[in-house]
Formats: sequence, structure tokens, C-alpha cells
Amino acid sequence: MRTQVAIIGSGPAGLLLGQLLTGTGIDNVILDRVSKDYILGRVRAGVLEEGTVRLLDEAGASERLHAEGLLHSGFSLAFDERNHRIDLAGLTGGKHVTVYGQTEVTRDLMHKRESDGARTIYAADNVAIHDFGLNRPFVTYESGGRTHRIDCDFIAGCDGFHGVSRRSVPESAIGTFERVYPFGWRGVLAEVPPVSHELIYANHPRGFALCSMRSATRSRYYVQCSLDDRVEDWSDDRFWDELRRRLPKEDAEALTTGPSFEKSIAPLRSFVAEPMRFGRLFLAGDAAHIVPPTGAKGLNLAASDVHYLFEGLRDHYADGTMAALDAYSQRALQRVWKAVRFSWSMTMLLHRFPDTGAFGQKIQHAELDYLVHSRAASTALAENYVGLPF
Amino acid sequence: MRTQVAIIGSGPAGLLLGQLLTGTGIDNVILDRVSKDYILGRVRAGVLEEGTVRLLDEAGASERLHAEGLLHSGFSLAFDERNHRIDLAGLTGGKHVTVYGQTEVTRDLMHKRESDGARTIYAADNVAIHDFGLNRPFVTYESGGRTHRIDCDFIAGCDGFHGVSRRSVPESAIGTFERVYPFGWRGVLAEVPPVSHELIYANHPRGFALCSMRSATRSRYYVQCSLDDRVEDWSDDRFWDELRRRLPKEDAEALTTGPSFEKSIAPLRSFVAEPMRFGRLFLAGDAAHIVPPTGAKGLNLAASDVHYLFEGLRDHYADGTMAALDAYSQRALQRVWKAVRFSWSMTMLLHRFPDTGAFGQKIQHAELDYLVHSRAASTALAENYVGLPF
Repeated sequence: MRTQVAIIGSGPAGLLLGQLLTGTGIDNVILDRVSKDYILGRVRAGVLEEGTVRLLDEAGASERLHAEGLLHSGFSLAFDERNHRIDLAGLTGGKHVTVYGQTEVTRDLMHKRESDGARTIYAADNVAIHDFGLNRPFVTYESGGRTHRIDCDFIAGCDGFHGVSRRSVPESAIGTFERVYPFGWRGVLAEVPPVSHELIYANHPRGFALCSMRSATRSRYYVQCSLDDRVEDWSDDRFWDELRRRLPKEDAEALTTGPSFEKSIAPLRSFVAEPMRFGRLFLAGDAAHIVPPTGAKGLNLAASDVHYLFEGLRDHYADGTMAALDAYSQRALQRVWKAVRFSWSMTMLLHRFPDTGAFGQKIQHAELDYLVHSRAASTALAENYVGLPF
Repeated sequence: MRTQVAIIGSGPAGLLLGQLLTGTGIDNVILDRVSKDYILGRVRAGVLEEGTVRLLDEAGASERLHAEGLLHSGFSLAFDERNHRIDLAGLTGGKHVTVYGQTEVTRDLMHKRESDGARTIYAADNVAIHDFGLNRPFVTYESGGRTHRIDCDFIAGCDGFHGVSRRSVPESAIGTFERVYPFGWRGVLAEVPPVSHELIYANHPRGFALCSMRSATRSRYYVQCSLDDRVEDWSDDRFWDELRRRLPKEDAEALTTGPSFEKSIAPLRSFVAEPMRFGRLFLAGDAAHIVPPTGAKGLNLAASDVHYLFEGLRDHYADGTMAALDAYSQRALQRVWKAVRFSWSMTMLLHRFPDTGAFGQKIQHAELDYLVHSRAASTALAENYVGLPF
């Protein structure tokens, strides 16, 4: 088989890139080692920046998002038993974020791709990428007991942190930067109305808590937990009790609880691999970088990578230039590091750290106090939260 | 001897409080364990916020400051071999800082105090404070082989980090918060024109550097050094070489060097003691808190403490109320923690830390990059640098 761009990974990054390419008449194939149902079974956050929504518009996959997504013009920072609203729209000249589950984004993109008739190969075993340092790269995979080969001009590695793309680059060619945080997030999904119509990020002596939602009837809640905790250590009762204790009284009293239908414990990590381009292989999204979920930047960063990569491929197929592809890694990384910094700073601001001591906690409190009382500092927070420009 | 307010310490905090009280007709005595010449021999930084200048105006000790002080409307952040100017005035609606040495502030206040005939006792041995938990506190000291006693209504502890005031409070009554940084500042004073008419704060792979000044002909320079370094390890040549390497090329080439007439190595520390009031003892300035010099907040924080304390004492002697004195600790600490946070964040942003690794350095760089390109973030930096409102 032959294509122009082979895309490894059928998550939102790969699907979005595929749709943008398909819309411009650039042939592409998406390969994923797992099944479509497996991908749609993954529960992920979903707070979309306006730039991400515009890309989904461009990809023709935003109709349901605009119908069902929740437009948020602010969120709360809760500390000292009080909510302090960050007026995103007021501070950024009218910008919003859209709450819409990442799984739904993936579903919409898959649906659009199918209706366009673009090729996706699921459950491809032993995907391997070859010769991306040369001019004629190719991809191999196994399916139905046979080995298949896809020849291509470029490979887009959109296959996440554990994917084959980054791991296929010699270690000596990559610089990696990492911070692992000494706690995790215990999360639940429950079919109950959210405690607030906007997100609440709570800094509490017992640890961080986040009140989020998927819709007006489905809530997503998290509490900071120990990395040693196992999912079975946390009954629903224990979870709701702990969440209530970390929220301001008004929210704790308003909280509607119910059986959880998804439970998880996720570790928090910051990770960046540099560069993001190796010959004819381009990494995008989680394949190149991971951010902790505080600040909801993961999906949005994948989208901005895809934006830069799409521009490079589009220009190349329009007139043969490599200029924008040559600039891809640098352009993408400049925005990546700003979002990595923001996610890191939100994580540092909101969690209890076992090792920063009393001084660190006082600094955290002083920062929260300053942040909510300074228009300049609130604006800096807001402009990062709604998304820095591409 | 009897007075209304006994002030321990003849640094800028004690002298400023003394002048404000004297100007309102409140009797006060200043006691210091060292001599006037010793105090005037101490070299200290001097970047004054407008609020500090207003207090010195109120104290009647600002004539020379206005004549000789340098009004600065911006400073430079240097990194990646480039200067990025922070336009303090443009970002804060016209606010400035005034560069005027702390030693000169002290000299002016002493001069004003002498011309007012207010009492100061220098070289007082074994100063001790008594009964400040009760209604009739008193101070004792030795001089000329005799023990003297000063009865008073209140004691103001303005005697610095190592002074007797805070150490006289039972440890169990004080909460202390501290961070010691793993490096020092090697500083020189030299009779050479400053390399730039504004301050340069440089983040460089070899470590932090600061270009400051006392006047148009006297420069004050610092480089980050190891805590193990001794002053004698640093010849003038080594110092100038190191400074040049840490500055952008344009500045390194423009640097005028010369013999240094003051050399020092200072450790960097953040420290806060809470509360700042114990019965009839009130701590102000370094007696209650220390900030690293990055950001030049030490003297300005002493001034804002004095402002709150003076208001409390003035109200008390006007109509007997204790309300503002009762609120002193909370009001002062709210501003203290914001300045402690700012000084900490500037220190974290600009120095090489031995233990944060490659990720920490990348975050630092991303923060600098964001800071100089975001108006909101630059404004937050500027409003802290010129001084948050009292």
C-alpha cells in the first residue's frame, strides 16, 4: 500500500491530522495497534481551547461539539473555604473554553473519517516504522497472519507516550526532560448533576480536589491521593467523604453523590522529548510530551502540534517547500514549553507536596491570595487557561 | 527614664518609625547595641518603592533622596544573550522605583532625628526587653558600667534578624517559616560608571548576575557563587571575568571595571516569624522576616511594617483605641507574604539551582520567555517590583 502521510495512532491527534489532510486532498492512512472500541472506551478529560475548537471546525467534526459542548466563561479557585472566580471571558476579551469529553471528540472525528471514506487500520499488530531518516520511509504491521507494508512520504507519530514512534528514534538523538509528581489523582465519573456549572479547583490542607463535568447530568470529580493507593482502597463512600471535606462548605453541602461508573488512579507527570522531528518522522501530542492534567492542556497541546504539522505538510504538497516542516519542531516546542510550564505551575500551586514543608505551603497560599486579588496575575492565569495563541 | 515607645534598633525601620512618631508628638527612644559609625559602615542595597519614598517624605528625611536618588522606570531581564526590558512605568500607570543606597536613607534619618533632638542611645550593652506581655513593659541596657531602665507603653522590635527582640519571645509562641537557598551572592562596589543606566538581572547557565548602582559613578555588581566560596577566593579579576561571561555581549563589552572597595559574600534566605505582635512588643522589618535580595524588597517591607505600626500607635495615642494595633500583625503579614513570595519567585526564576535538573532549567527558560512576551505576566512582575499597595 502507498500513501502520502502514514499516521501512527488513532487518538484525537492522529484523527485530527488525518481529517485536516483529507480535507486538503492529501492522502493518509491511520494505523492503530488497538481496536476502535478500545479507543472509545478510554475516559479522558475534555476542556477545549478556542483554537482547538477552530481546528475541529476546520476538520468538519464539530457539529455535535457545538450542540452539546458546555461553554465556560470562568472557573473557581477554592481555598480558605471560599470560592474565588476567575472570569476567563472578562480577563481575556471574551474568550471561553468548551467542556466536551475527549472521547466524544475522538468519536466525532472517527465518524467524520468514516463518512469521508479515509483509511484506518485498527488492531494492527507489531507496527514498526522504517527508514524515516531517509527519503522513502515505510511502515509495517501484522494483521490476519501476514505482514503488510505502507510506503509513504512522511510518518506522523501520534501514538502517545508509550507508542512505537518515539521509541523508534535512537535514544542518543533525543533529549528528554521529566518531572514525576509525588501523588496521583483518584477520579470518578458519576451520573449526577455537577455541584457547580463551572469547574472548581480546590487547594485544601488535605490535598487537591477538582470538580468537573461531562454534561449537565454527568460529573467528573478528582481528589489528590497517594501513589501507593489502589483503586480498591477507595470505596465510593470514602471518595465522596474526602471530596466533601476538601470543598468550601457551600459546595460540600450542594454536592449530589451517586454510584460511580468509572474509577481510576492516575499518576501525574511532566515530560518533553526534543526535538519533535527526526528526518521524515514528526511526533505530535503525547508521543512527544505529557503534562499533568491540572490546567487541562494535554489535548489542546496535541491540537496545536497538529496545527503546525498540518501547515507544514499542506505547504509541502502545495509547492514542494520544506520550510514549514523544517520549522515544525521549533514552533511546536515553543508553545509546548509554555503549556508545560503552565501545567507545572498549576500543579505546584494546587497540590499538597509532601516535601516542601511549612514554608512551601505558605508560599502557595500567598500565591493564591495574590493571584485572585491582582488583575494582572488573574489575567496571566486566564490567558494560559483559555490557551496561548498558536 | 520613661518614654511612650521604646524602639530597639537604629536601622532604617527603627529610625523611620521614630521620625513618624516624633512628627506626631509621640515620645520615643531608640536604643542600639552598636555605634552610629558602625551602622553607617554597613553596605546595603537601595531600590525604594514609591510607598517607601512617601514615608520618608512624611518623616521629613527625603530632601537629599529627591536630589540625588536615581528614578528608574524600568529594568532588564537578560537571558539567551539578550536584554528584555521590563517597562515598569508603562506597565503600572507611571510608577517608578528610586535607586538610593540604604546607608544614605539611614544617614538622612539619623540627621533628621538629631536635628529634632530626639533621643538615641548607641552602643547600649546587654539590651533586654521585659514584661511586654503585661501592661507596663520596660527595657534595660548597660552603659558606662551601670544598668539603665526605660519604662514605656510599647516596644518596637526593629533590631533585625539577629536582634534581641524576637529572641525574647518564647519559641513556643512563634511560628517560623524558612527557606535557605543553596548559593550566595558575591558582591563588589566599585567607583566606575554603571554598565547600564537601569538594573540588569541576568539568568545565565553559569549562574545569576546583577548589575546595579549607587550613583552615576558608583556601581554595585553581584554574581551568584557557591556557599563554600570565601571572599579571598575571588580576586577582582576573577570577579570581573565572571560577571562579563554572564552578561549579554553588548553589556560585557561596555562594562567598565576598576578596583573594588567593598567585597562580600552574602547567603540568601527567606524567613518569616508569625505573629509580629506579642502583647506590647511589635516586630518590624528584618526582626520578623528576611527576604533574599532578588527583587530588592527587604527595606521596602520594613517600611510597610512601620507604616502599619505607626498608624496603630498614632490612633492609640489620639483616642486610646487598640483596634489598629490589634490588627497590626495580620495587616503587616498579608503584605509580607506577598513580598516573600515575590522575592522567592524572582530567586527561583533567575538562579541556577544545583538540584532542579534539566527539567527545572527548561521551566525557568519557558517562564522567562513567557514573562517578557505576555503583557499580563510582565505587568504582574512590574506591579510587584514597584511595590504592591500598603
